[in-house]
Amino acid sequence: MSGEQELGITESKEHSTGEWYAEVVQKAEMADYAPMGGFIVTRPRGYAVWERIQDHLDGWFKDTGVQNAYFPLFIPESYLEREKDIVEGFDPEVAWVTHGGYDELEERLAVRPTSESIITPFIADWVRSHRDLPMRLNQWCSVVRWEATETKPFFRTKEFLWQEGHTAHADEDGAWDETMTRLEQYEKLYEDVLAMPVLKGRKPEHDKFPGAHTTTTVEALMPDGKSVQGGTSHYLGTSFAKAFDITYSDENEDEQLAHTTSWGLSWRSMGALIMTHSDDQGLVLPPALAPEQVVIVPIWQEDNKDDVVEYAADVAAELDEAGVRVHLDDRDNRNPGFKYNEWELKGVPLRIEVGPNEVDDEEITLVHRPDGENVVESRDQLVDTVEDHLDTVFAKLYASAEETLEGEIREADSREEILGTIGQHGGYVKSGWCGDEDCEEPIKEAIAAEIAMVPLDRDEEPVHDECAICGEAAEETAYWAKTY
Amino acid sequence: MSGEQELGITESKEHSTGEWYAEVVQKAEMADYAPMGGFIVTRPRGYAVWERIQDHLDGWFKDTGVQNAYFPLFIPESYLEREKDIVEGFDPEVAWVTHGGYDELEERLAVRPTSESIITPFIADWVRSHRDLPMRLNQWCSVVRWEATETKPFFRTKEFLWQEGHTAHADEDGAWDETMTRLEQYEKLYEDVLAMPVLKGRKPEHDKFPGAHTTTTVEALMPDGKSVQGGTSHYLGTSFAKAFDITYSDENEDEQLAHTTSWGLSWRSMGALIMTHSDDQGLVLPPALAPEQVVIVPIWQEDNKDDVVEYAADVAAELDEAGVRVHLDDRDNRNPGFKYNEWELKGVPLRIEVGPNEVDDEEITLVHRPDGENVVESRDQLVDTVEDHLDTVFAKLYASAEETLEGEIREADSREEILGTIGQHGGYVKSGWCGDEDCEEPIKEAIAAEIAMVPLDRDEEPVHDECAICGEAAEETAYWAKTY
Repeated sequence: MSGEQELGITESKEHSTGEWYAEVVQKAEMADYAPMGGFIVTRPRGYAVWERIQDHLDGWFKDTGVQNAYFPLFIPESYLEREKDIVEGFDPEVAWVTHGGYDELEERLAVRPTSESIITPFIADWVRSHRDLPMRLNQWCSVVRWEATETKPFFRTKEFLWQEGHTAHADEDGAWDETMTRLEQYEKLYEDVLAMPVLKGRKPEHDKFPGAHTTTTVEALMPDGKSVQGGTSHYLGTSFAKAFDITYSDENEDEQLAHTTSWGLSWRSMGALIMTHSDDQGLVLPPALAPEQVVIVPIWQEDNKDDVVEYAADVAAELDEAGVRVHLDDRDNRNPGFKYNEWELKGVPLRIEVGPNEVDDEEITLVHRPDGENVVESRDQLVDTVEDHLDTVFAKLYASAEETLEGEIREADSREEILGTIGQHGGYVKSGWCGDEDCEEPIKEAIAAEIAMVPLDRDEEPVHDECAICGEAAEETAYWAKTY
Repeated sequence: MSGEQELGITESKEHSTGEWYAEVVQKAEMADYAPMGGFIVTRPRGYAVWERIQDHLDGWFKDTGVQNAYFPLFIPESYLEREKDIVEGFDPEVAWVTHGGYDELEERLAVRPTSESIITPFIADWVRSHRDLPMRLNQWCSVVRWEATETKPFFRTKEFLWQEGHTAHADEDGAWDETMTRLEQYEKLYEDVLAMPVLKGRKPEHDKFPGAHTTTTVEALMPDGKSVQGGTSHYLGTSFAKAFDITYSDENEDEQLAHTTSWGLSWRSMGALIMTHSDDQGLVLPPALAPEQVVIVPIWQEDNKDDVVEYAADVAAELDEAGVRVHLDDRDNRNPGFKYNEWELKGVPLRIEVGPNEVDDEEITLVHRPDGENVVESRDQLVDTVEDHLDTVFAKLYASAEETLEGEIREADSREEILGTIGQHGGYVKSGWCGDEDCEEPIKEAIAAEIAMVPLDRDEEPVHDECAICGEAAEETAYWAKTY
């Protein structure tokens, strides 16, 4: 049993969430810390999850008219400057390349923090006529933002992987539809693939993406009561089109200004996934993302080893044939208990145990990762049975996350109640809000909570008539939360 | 017909290969020039080809035990230094990040020129026992090498996309098998997907990857008579394992040194592809890589337009249903001739023309991109017919490239003959070679040709007994060529 101690998770999700998260990420071999603070190495088990997230999203993007492209890693300083007419810019967060080989560069190059300033001029160049619209580009790449904070794999790193979509449209309707299409695809990714319910909303005016008309967001609640921005989709209006001169000739040959959008989802989604479902035994993954969906552990004595292993191998072959990602763990040098722990740590959603009884009765024992429930089923209809159980595992994960979220949306109608409720429970607190950034300040200062979002629908009646902070007429409902 | 002039290729492949190549890349919308010299923007049509190259190779890698991972974009200067015990290093070619936000960094960070120096220490950390071997990691990423040369899209750019594989094995046999497996996958990519015959060989000792025991290569001949290194696979021996301390305990618990490999293929393969098959009408792509495999152009008069377009749409729907990538070009504002030119320029392998005659006779007319051959076929068995013709297009491309290559391998047994033959014909010239780098010099100096490769098999008899340059005993056969 040596090694088992070292293998297992020692921290507690409930009592030391941050340390527990870091331990799960490392021991489940999702990621490791790079030698430079703020950077991580994404190990094969982590990257395989990211690849599956990419596959889902990329397929949906392509089905809805998006084309992938690749723009340079570096952006000349003068290009970033050009954006300053409309936005504050990323200056304090930019990593600068100053030398190529032994020579100093004439102009510094920014390692892209996001690519509006290099992609938009090309869109401007490529769009001539209304027939060129809509133009929808996306790239999967890494970006760098030099934020001086503690490294938290996938949540907070100086370099991160993401996709960034950039589109141009003939009018506001087209661009607004695009904004919502991407937001809904992000929601679908969380709900149907990551087994995580999310809230769709808008960022308050003062917290929009620089230059955006509207920033929409999907927000996910973490088990420590904090909200994570899970993906954002921006309707940029004509501000970028004006700054970068994206015009087109319409059907009457008149020159018009395009409307643009941008939208992005990063590997933070993977951090939120790990944080939401995993437990004190280690990683928990939904079946669609798990590198192995099923692990088969044969349990034998010397006198029945051949029969048991043959039966297990046969089960594995049948599942593999059907496209289930299955691993047969027939290692001689580990006992079944060790194997259970190891695969629980690594987040395999379903374990099949096969011993002499299963062989005799032509059965299999299935054990669900998230709750350890085990069920004996007939060996007949193997593939259907396994797929049903994988669906059940998904449903359990989703139901558990949904239950948590539903219990964590509360209301408050005064500053004290907001502070008290978030202080005591975490989660979201809804209140009336006048729309003024000044009314966010006292909450931010006192407990570092902020307005995570407001409802998407601008015409929705506020939850209370008055702003919980200043008492003036409420313009909308604020969802207060501590955030990542 | 306005626009047609601007649309077409004006340069000649035969007489101005470089200018012609640049024109094809831009007008077929594969890539555009970035504002900084040495950088390009890969447009959707170019990126779609790269994605298909990735899909093929990535599938083969995964089928043969490779796992994808992602390592940081930046490498601390001290890590690059560590490699200097064994290699000269990439110093003159490195882009350096010196500032994060407003602050100067304590240690400069290299934008990765290749990742041995950051990946190998992690492999050393992760490998403990013989059970951890082989360990095979790959990443798809961009790398930066600050070479001060003219920008040639996909061939010569400061930033380029590639995959880099890094593996560790228990012994030389395992690592050598790995080296050859990857080289053969590169060969298969060129021959079965890109429709390009290649030569497999080794780089001469003095031209190996720094620190490698053996550098193997696939070389492709370009129409201007120069050789392109199409992908390289290095057996690194134990030199990196020694420098980075990759050891493992074997079955007897004895500590052993691992043997490592690395191997890479870049978007230069796309450059070679474009250069090889394209012509004065524009881009030519093999069917497996083309964004659209088939374009359907309906040819109508007013009185039969509805019938023709309906027939064409029906053909398109049936092909689409069968998984053929098909585009129906039913634009009203362009005549058929314009459409032919545009899709030829963009490299669609097969055109289907549908006019009133085809409708009446229930036929289709198929036109092969590479040579304009056109064939009338029955509308029955549409999918099989189209797939046969796509296969024929592939076969034509391969045969043409193969014929070129076969005619371009000559022999020479003196310095004068090498110079004269390459000077007159380009291509490869085989000669005996003593193995001494000094004997490469006079050829390099005179005509900038070099030894592109020597045969893989170290025991193969040289083509001549004597070195064509110095007259000493020949050790092996040198394949001389001008190179990219």
